[in-house]
Parts: sequence; C-alpha cells; structure tokens
Amino acid sequence: MVNELIAAGFEFVDHVAIAVKQGELDAQVLKYKALGFTELHREEVYGKHQVREVLLQIGAGPNLIQLLEPLSPESPVAKQIEKSGGRGGFAHLAFRVKDINVAYAVMKEKGFNLTQEPGPGSRGTMIFFVHPKDFSYLIEVVQEGTTHA
Amino acid sequence: MVNELIAAGFEFVDHVAIAVKQGELDAQVLKYKALGFTELHREEVYGKHQVREVLLQIGAGPNLIQLLEPLSPESPVAKQIEKSGGRGGFAHLAFRVKDINVAYAVMKEKGFNLTQEPGPGSRGTMIFFVHPKDFSYLIEVVQEGTTHA
Repeated sequence: MVNELIAAGFEFVDHVAIAVKQGELDAQVLKYKALGFTELHREEVYGKHQVREVLLQIGAGPNLIQLLEPLSPESPVAKQIEKSGGRGGFAHLAFRVKDINVAYAVMKEKGFNLTQEPGPGSRGTMIFFVHPKDFSYLIEVVQEGTTHA
Repeated sequence: MVNELIAAGFEFVDHVAIAVKQGELDAQVLKYKALGFTELHREEVYGKHQVREVLLQIGAGPNLIQLLEPLSPESPVAKQIEKSGGRGGFAHLAFRVKDINVAYAVMKEKGFNLTQEPGPGSRGTMIFFVHPKDFSYLIEVVQEGTTHA
C-alpha cells in the first residue's frame, strides 16, 4: 500500500522516440546534426525489439531524441511504421523519474495500466511502459542508468 | 545569406502536443495531475486553430505537455484525431530556440521545409512549423514569449 502523499517523481522528458524507416536512419541523423543536435549513443537491440537506436542530445540539456530503425520486419517498430502509413514518426514519449520502483508503485496504486514491471532498458536504464489506453499514446517511464552513454 | 557557423540555437523540448478527443480534456488533465504535473495555462484559440489548450508542467523543469482539444469539427486537431483512428495522441513536438529569426534563417538556408514565417503562438510566443516531410512528424520551433504564463 503506497502512501497517497508519495509523489510519482516525474522530472522531465527523457526522450521522444521516433520510428524511422529502414535505410533512412543515417539521413535522419544528419538532419538533426544540421540543427546542432549531438549524437550521444548508438546501439543495436535484438531479441523482441529488433531495432537500431540512436540518441541525439538537444542543446546542452537532458532532453533526447531517440531514433528507432527496425532491423527486421518482425520489429514492433516496423509494425508501428506500417500502421502509420509507412512513413514512420512518433513512437513513444519517455519521462525521467527519480526512482523507478516508487513511480511504478504509485502508478499501480492509482490504477494506471502498466504493461510490465520495471526492467532493463538501453544505456543501463530501468524502464516500464504505460498502455496507450491511459493517455492515448505510449508512455515510457525511465530511471537513469548506473552506466552512462 | 546566413553564415554557416551560426547555430540554429535549439535548446530543449518546449512541449509535446497531444490531441485529445472532444469532451475528454478534463479527464486527461486529472490523470497528469495524479502524476504530479502542474497546470500552468489554459486558453481557447479560435480562428483557424479552434482548440482548447492546456499546458502542464513536468516536475520543476521547462518541459511541458500541451493538450489540444478541438472546439469544432473544422479544427485541424479534429482532423488529426480522425486520421489517427479517432483516438487522439501525438500531435507535434516543439523545440525551444534562443532566437526565432536566427533559427528560421538557418533552417531556410539549409533547405528545411518551413511552412510559415515566424508568427505569434499562444502565451506570447513566436513560432513556426517544419513540414513532416523533413522529420516524418510535425515540428514546431518556439521562442519564449515576452509575456509569461
């Protein structure tokens, strides 16, 4: 039972995730760099995700753009692109929280539809997702990793 | 002619705009408040926009969620909701820049598809938009207003 006064601890936008069509990742990265964004991290995630991920920093702040390019047609990102008319675009919005376990407990207590318990994300982060039926789009909740990009 | 060394001046995510179905705005605002978000501003915008706008602050930082509820079926937001299968969701991503005129000149020089010259947005801001053909989603570029929320 979570005390009602305990806050979920939402701090800021960790990243905005954008689905990019296969073969277009590098061209997209160049466009962000032309605007002064900095590439911080690049990772290929296999297993159920099947995506190439690039993290771009906006200015000197903590907000990132996360580009997700599917590595195979089985990737959930490939399916998201197909659903959006083949064009790609917004995939999810990730909020940074102080403590992932507190955020999870508070949101569960309040009846939000959490699709998984907190688990490892990329960059050593801990994450969980909120089902789109709550906010009409997919939300990721992120606690910063112990390892940094 | 813009000097190539002049940066576009992108600083951070000003807001993430979310389209909300007519009649569901207040229920959505309550969900964000349950997570500790603060309502900063509420405005009804007529003319070609036809939306009710609520700005919610995430934590103590500069990132905002902008909820947009159509005031009429002619609102571009109503059309966006219709296109997304009637559910609403992501509408656009707005980046804050230091100087709207510098950002506009640099982006025009670099060949980005800007849909309008800088003009007034809500809260006394100055804004312009980048056509989705550049980044596969709609980007708004924002300079903070002289009047504050």
